[in-house]
Formats: sequence, C-alpha cells, structure tokens
Amino acid sequence: MRIQSPANPKVKALAALKERKERERAGLFLVEGRREVERALRAGLHLETLLLGPKATPEDRALAGPVPILEFSQEAMERVSVREHPPPVIGVFRIPQKSLKGVRLPQTPLVLVLLGLEKPGNLGAILRAADGAGVDLVLVAEGVDLYSPQVIRNSTGAVFSLPVYPVPEEEVGGFLEGKGLILVAATPRGEKIYWEEDYRKGVAFLLGAEDEGLPEAWLQRAQTRVRIPMRGVADSLNVAVSAALLLYEAQRQRNPA
Amino acid sequence: MRIQSPANPKVKALAALKERKERERAGLFLVEGRREVERALRAGLHLETLLLGPKATPEDRALAGPVPILEFSQEAMERVSVREHPPPVIGVFRIPQKSLKGVRLPQTPLVLVLLGLEKPGNLGAILRAADGAGVDLVLVAEGVDLYSPQVIRNSTGAVFSLPVYPVPEEEVGGFLEGKGLILVAATPRGEKIYWEEDYRKGVAFLLGAEDEGLPEAWLQRAQTRVRIPMRGVADSLNVAVSAALLLYEAQRQRNPA
Repeated sequence: MRIQSPANPKVKALAALKERKERERAGLFLVEGRREVERALRAGLHLETLLLGPKATPEDRALAGPVPILEFSQEAMERVSVREHPPPVIGVFRIPQKSLKGVRLPQTPLVLVLLGLEKPGNLGAILRAADGAGVDLVLVAEGVDLYSPQVIRNSTGAVFSLPVYPVPEEEVGGFLEGKGLILVAATPRGEKIYWEEDYRKGVAFLLGAEDEGLPEAWLQRAQTRVRIPMRGVADSLNVAVSAALLLYEAQRQRNPA
Repeated sequence: MRIQSPANPKVKALAALKERKERERAGLFLVEGRREVERALRAGLHLETLLLGPKATPEDRALAGPVPILEFSQEAMERVSVREHPPPVIGVFRIPQKSLKGVRLPQTPLVLVLLGLEKPGNLGAILRAADGAGVDLVLVAEGVDLYSPQVIRNSTGAVFSLPVYPVPEEEVGGFLEGKGLILVAATPRGEKIYWEEDYRKGVAFLLGAEDEGLPEAWLQRAQTRVRIPMRGVADSLNVAVSAALLLYEAQRQRNPA
C-alpha cells in the first residue's frame, strides 16, 4: 500500500521534521540517503521507520531490518526531503540523549569548539573534516541544530559517529579548563601563524561565527590566538577549511614524517 | 524607467546567461552582489551593464561608473539571479580572453591542476582556498565553466584575480613538464602522507573529480602520490578542503616557524 498524496497526514507530519522546533517536539529526525542511513545505524542510532520511494532497491529495503516500512510516491518523498531530487530511502530516527558528563578524553586530546556557528551546511562540512582529522570531541555552543538535514548531508553522516555535543556557551569554559586543555582561538588578528604554535599537548581550537568570528571575551580567554595567512583578495576562508587546516596541522605535529 | 516584467525580452536575454552555452555565445557573464562586482572591477574585467533592483543603495549605483544602468523590479532580478534572494546589484561582464602562452611563473611555483572537476560550487570553494594560500597558477582541465554563477559565488570573487586558466587536458602534461614542475597526485592510495613530501621546489598538485578521483594515467604520470589520512568513518574530504590542506602545507614548508 503505497501512500500517494503529499497531502496525506503521515507525509505532512514527517515533512514537519524539516523544522527544528518540530524535531525537538517529536524527538525524531530525518536521515536522507542509503549511505547516511547506514552510518546512522552503524553508530547505534535508533531507527523508527524507513521511508521508501518508488525507486528503492532491495538493498535500500534491507536497511529496515525489523522496523516498519512506509512506501511513498515520488511526490510524497519530495515533500519530506529537503533535496530537489530526493533519494529513494529516508530514515526516521530518534534523537539520542547525550550528556557531556560521561565524556572521557584521551591523554592529549584534540578538541574543536564551535561558538555561535550559523549555517547548518558549514557545521556539516566542519564535522566531515573533523571526522577525517580524527578529533576527540566537538562542542557546538549555541547556533545550529545538530539534527538539521543540511548538517547530516554535508557531514556525509559523520555527525552520527563523532563525539559531538551541543552545550550552552556558559558551560564551555569550565569544561575545557577542567580538562587542562590549552585554548587556541582562530582569528584573523592572531599574533602567530597557526603552524607556529605547538599542538602536541591537549588542545581545544575555538572557532566563531562565519561573519563575526569569535567574541572578544573568548579571544581574551584563550591562551593563544592564531591566524591563517591570507595571501589573496579574500579576507577569510570557509570555516570548514579553517577547521581542517588547524586540526590536520595538530595531527601533523603529533605524527611527523 | 524601471523594467517591471520578468517576461521583458531584456530580462529574458540576461537570465539566459545562467547557462554556459549562452554565456559562450554572447561572450558575457553575470556577477551577483556588490563585493563580487567590486572584485571583478578591481581585477580589470570589463563591465558592460549594471543591473539594479529596487533595494540598490547609492554605493551599489556608484559601481557603474560610466557604464549603462538598467533598473529592474524585484521579480526581474529574481529571474536573472541564481539565488533565492537576489542581491540588489548584478553586473554583466565580458568574458576575458586568456591564454596560457603568456603565463610567467616565479622560481619555485605553486600550481594547482584540477582534472575533470564536476561541481561549480566546488571549483568556487577551491579557488577561494587557493587565493588564501597564494597559488601561482590554477589549471582547470575540462569540466566546470569558470564563469558559472556558483563558481563566482563560492570563490567570493577570487576567480577574477587568480591566475586561473581553462585548458584542454592533453595540453596539461606538456605545459607542467616544460616548466620543470614536480607533479604530485592527491589520491587515497598515495604511498606517502601529504606532509611527508617536500614541496619547497616548484610543485603542481593534481586533483581529480569529486567521486572518481584522478584517472590512472595521471596517477602514473605524477612523480609522487600523496594521501590525506582519514581517521573516521568518511572515506574522503571535500575537494576544496583537500586542496587547502595541500597548498597550505606547501606554504608552511616554504615559510617555517
């Protein structure tokens, strides 16, 4: 029994999960595409329902396991998806309950702190780079919702497996200092180039909002401020590129040639 | 006299410039937004007409200099723009005639070669990072059109000032070898981590298409193949992040602490 109409109440209720408020109310979020659904399952997230469009393959269907399947028309899939061309499979997952309290870090952790980031696509791209670089913890203070479809898409599903936590901004400083981490603020006004600093001890990189950067209070609180040299006409890099440069430089210093 | 209707023939002719074929036929392309128009002008590109929407400021208007202005309704601007919310100013520029023949490189050049890249947004993001890193030359072999609106947007206008050239793939090898450059292929199967290689001599980094990577022939032709370590669940980084890591590592080696 395939649900045809995009005006069907089930379709409308699922499409509402594109909005943060509705995700938080229902405790559910959407994962579009087979690779991303697989990564969510592998990370231990709880699948509630699997939506299959008319072009779903047997491999797509097998993702459901014992979980109920809803078959949707192409139009219904388009209503639920944020993409112009929806994938044939969308998973409806439960938002996990996560708490910083239980987090354990290795001896010299590599931590990334995002303060007031505004664009979900950027958060996703940062998480993809942080996953590649092998970060031990990502704190997201205010701003973007981790379960936004754009975060999931741009992170290619890394958001599920990474140790990433939303935290209120006022808890960030206490947590980092309690762990003995060196706070390194990334700012165009940094006194050192980022590769001039030593990251072999436990380090937390602080990155601010796309346009505004880090607030003055955080620039002061950091032990050191580093800049990425800009040799051309543009005055900044994309924030995901900046994050990748910092994290990979730390890994280079820890694993030299 | 403001042009109101999006069906006006002038509006339709300008909207057609969103397509590569029409850009190549007319020899014109569109630059959306004040910052980007300013960067195009500063790079010496030739402005033909300036389009102003109802929200244009006196600063937007001043960009025209002696060049004709067309005043458009919001609906007409929406028709011409690729954005959901068009900026109040769009420049119509002439596509410059560029030839690799006259290119002069410094003693130890840093060159980026993009082979078969598919997404204009990625090319733009790569150019923004290449501008920041201070690249001496970018070759774009096949694939994306340099004057696509997404390239301009994601490059934040760096495409205008960077030495970036479209070239047929069969001319790339001869050019690079004629300049005595070391060819470094970026590939997940690289025998070295990228920071284990020496980039203090003249270097050309080769990057392939988003999904396929570099073709086998180019992997063989390169003197060395380097990989970016991937420590998480994802098997690759965004191509602009990869380009930034390689170029900034070369700059780090050339300008050590």
